[in-house]
Amino acid sequence: MKLNCDMGESYGQWQMGNDEKVMPHVHQANIACGFHASDPEHMANTIRLAKTHHVSIGAHPGYPDLLGFGRRSMKLSAAELTHYLHYQISALQGMCQLQGGTLEYVKPHGALYLDMMQDEAILTTVMQAVAAFTPALPLMIQASSQHEHHQALAQTSGLTLLFEAFADRRYQDNGQLTPRSQAGAVLSAEQMLCQAQLLASEGIITTESGHALTFPVDSLCVHGDNPATVAVIAKLKLLLSNTHWPR
Amino acid sequence: MKLNCDMGESYGQWQMGNDEKVMPHVHQANIACGFHASDPEHMANTIRLAKTHHVSIGAHPGYPDLLGFGRRSMKLSAAELTHYLHYQISALQGMCQLQGGTLEYVKPHGALYLDMMQDEAILTTVMQAVAAFTPALPLMIQASSQHEHHQALAQTSGLTLLFEAFADRRYQDNGQLTPRSQAGAVLSAEQMLCQAQLLASEGIITTESGHALTFPVDSLCVHGDNPATVAVIAKLKLLLSNTHWPR
Amino acid sequence: MKLNCDMGESYGQWQMGNDEKVMPHVHQANIACGFHASDPEHMANTIRLAKTHHVSIGAHPGYPDLLGFGRRSMKLSAAELTHYLHYQISALQGMCQLQGGTLEYVKPHGALYLDMMQDEAILTTVMQAVAAFTPALPLMIQASSQHEHHQALAQTSGLTLLFEAFADRRYQDNGQLTPRSQAGAVLSAEQMLCQAQLLASEGIITTESGHALTFPVDSLCVHGDNPATVAVIAKLKLLLSNTHWPR
Amino acid sequence: MKLNCDMGESYGQWQMGNDEKVMPHVHQANIACGFHASDPEHMANTIRLAKTHHVSIGAHPGYPDLLGFGRRSMKLSAAELTHYLHYQISALQGMCQLQGGTLEYVKPHGALYLDMMQDEAILTTVMQAVAAFTPALPLMIQASSQHEHHQALAQTSGLTLLFEAFADRRYQDNGQLTPRSQAGAVLSAEQMLCQAQLLASEGIITTESGHALTFPVDSLCVHGDNPATVAVIAKLKLLLSNTHWPR
Repeated sequence: MKLNCDMGESYGQWQMGNDEKVMPHVHQANIACGFHASDPEHMANTIRLAKTHHVSIGAHPGYPDLLGFGRRSMKLSAAELTHYLHYQISALQGMCQLQGGTLEYVKPHGALYLDMMQDEAILTTVMQAVAAFTPALPLMIQASSQHEHHQALAQTSGLTLLFEAFADRRYQDNGQLTPRSQAGAVLSAEQMLCQAQLLASEGIITTESGHALTFPVDSLCVHGDNPATVAVIAKLKLLLSNTHWPR
Repeated sequence: MKLNCDMGESYGQWQMGNDEKVMPHVHQANIACGFHASDPEHMANTIRLAKTHHVSIGAHPGYPDLLGFGRRSMKLSAAELTHYLHYQISALQGMCQLQGGTLEYVKPHGALYLDMMQDEAILTTVMQAVAAFTPALPLMIQASSQHEHHQALAQTSGLTLLFEAFADRRYQDNGQLTPRSQAGAVLSAEQMLCQAQLLASEGIITTESGHALTFPVDSLCVHGDNPATVAVIAKLKLLLSNTHWPR
Repeated sequence: MKLNCDMGESYGQWQMGNDEKVMPHVHQANIACGFHASDPEHMANTIRLAKTHHVSIGAHPGYPDLLGFGRRSMKLSAAELTHYLHYQISALQGMCQLQGGTLEYVKPHGALYLDMMQDEAILTTVMQAVAAFTPALPLMIQASSQHEHHQALAQTSGLTLLFEAFADRRYQDNGQLTPRSQAGAVLSAEQMLCQAQLLASEGIITTESGHALTFPVDSLCVHGDNPATVAVIAKLKLLLSNTHWPR
Repeated sequence: MKLNCDMGESYGQWQMGNDEKVMPHVHQANIACGFHASDPEHMANTIRLAKTHHVSIGAHPGYPDLLGFGRRSMKLSAAELTHYLHYQISALQGMCQLQGGTLEYVKPHGALYLDMMQDEAILTTVMQAVAAFTPALPLMIQASSQHEHHQALAQTSGLTLLFEAFADRRYQDNGQLTPRSQAGAVLSAEQMLCQAQLLASEGIITTESGHALTFPVDSLCVHGDNPATVAVIAKLKLLLSNTHWPR
């Protein structure tokens, strides 16, 4: 099981994130592509940083809404969404190749990610848009109780899926995240390590009510917003490297 | 000798140009890449149109200035310019490949083109940025009396150059265009055909004073702004296909 | 009863609309404010044109989505929407004053207009945002069967409403527009004149089924997309100036 | 003599500066207007913060270059520059008024500021653009050996000037700033206090060679980038409030 983190989210003179501190401790860097965050300079620098630390590079495309950081849902046509994805992924893929690197997967950002997980028409558009690339690029989506249905959908397009769980979030019995509005929705450092340990060794996520979720998880999404969370990420990586992953 | 034309310059709901009318009559389409004009939808549609008419596709990157259509000079660092070019060219290249097409060359747009022809430091940055692509992409620049020097510069980067002349413009004895502020700077339809005929058959451009310029020209740049100019482009293509090109 | 038309929708080098042709024939110009269309140059020029023809100037603010021309719904917080409106309206208001003119009303654009007419929370945010201006700016919304409810809502904020009907659209018995997907949704020139005549003289709109709608209408929205529609607008203005308006 | 500081330079989710920490210690806040930094939300919040601390509000307009933070020179026509200024200043002025505040002056940002100080044609365009506002808005420019010439220029437009010096920079004998590339160009905290003390009590700036510059200074520009500089700003304010200003 791997750790993935959103990276390259600075824009022009505005800094965001702790990419230099976090990069050594993750396996997969989801790099923004200029529509909701990042720009050619920051993309090139983040690719370089990922390659230095032998971290896999994923495209992290979003809605064309810099002002809203891609966190506001936008109603796009299927053609618009397809071409916005093709543009962003192509830009990052080419910039990887120019540094002798390889784009390895795609993970949509923010409101596009949420819309895709809630609306099958949008998910299908995303799947078909990503499946069009050669060589094939896996699509990372949220691990959930619908994973078998999502696999079936992906196979229609000849697409490989990667499933991610959220390292710092509590899960409900239905397999969804406990809303942030509820107490206990965000895990403490200790709880994160505990949840990751169980997932890595037994393939299980324990929900808030004690129920065991058993969907497949290929990667844990982490956020390196401050020195404390960076320290937790480092511990998570160590834990994962010492744990036999059953899948 | 070929005809090239700027294409794909619409943006969102705003239309520009007569791409559908012009495409059948040119050999090379310089497609805008989203920084000064175009967007993923128009890029995809223009690629499709070019492929339908078996027209070569070139990337037409510009300064990041949608409001000014890339016609206002901007002072960029070499790193900024390099990465802006890599991003735009990669985006278009990937979108070509997704349609089974191939990006064949690069021609900078507007103020970037003018800056590159006037400032060797900028030209060198552009050359090195374009030379970094694999497979190799030729760079189209303005044919001028400096062509040998430009060829030498390009060889340093292992870059192939394409030289273009302007179909609808009068030339001065120094090989530069007669400024638009001067009478006779813009050619009539008849003059355009005459200039193209001489260039294609003899490899010569006759200046305003009657001097013969003999620099190499691989392509003529045309503009299809209205039905009249589209008709001239069609005649130019016919003329070129019937003329032995001496080069 | 007046005629209003969206104006100033060009952006940079991209032209849209026939403002110079249409302006002489309308009473109210809804001028875009730079978020979905227009820019400072086109705003200044459109203000000048409106003043030349003694046409009232309204602000036509939209969602911050140039690429989508403000036609794609965006989920904004009430604070975001309020400040986006304040920014756009203030910019246009100041630019009017710099030319010795006065901003006279506000009419939201595109998806914001549709969202406001369908979601009372959004309408309330728009009303309160517009009501905050001194001197008071009326808000133009769609005339509908809900007009009394809308008036009551507006009074809460001390806001004056202007109601508009659509000159070129058929109405349903529920007071809503016949969807464009249905035959007969868009009126012919003759039907437009007929509908306007009846509305101006009797205060009545006849629906597709022959039912009479009697909601108040202060202004008719027209679109001057081509020479034919410009001719209809000219006839509509003449018709209105010769008709006793009963309200 | 007052202290002015650039404020409201965050954009969307990207934070910049320490506005909440710095605001209590300055007299004048130069608020970005959305072209090179800031957005309607941050503008509204920064206006509120300034009013809370009884700080004068100035418009800080820049080139339309978010990606370059307004720090890259752009060649604009006089009409473009005029309307870009009118749009930005109007937007901020209206938003001030909506909070019961008043816009009190204008200070251009970044490359526009530098271009204006180096190119009299640009300065004249800026002066005329700002002079067009009613009620009158003073323009803040750099105090220099040319101050009498600048005053004469401003009088032509009926414009009031405010002159600023840079609190943290060493001056050359010609009245220009010592370039950052030279040792000693940026003052230590102690040197800043010393330079401000002399300027406030005697109206003199001592250059790197010991020469005394005596041009009028209405305001000192400070930068609150980190906790250490915020502490210096607090000391500067205390110093100024205890010093008789001779002008």
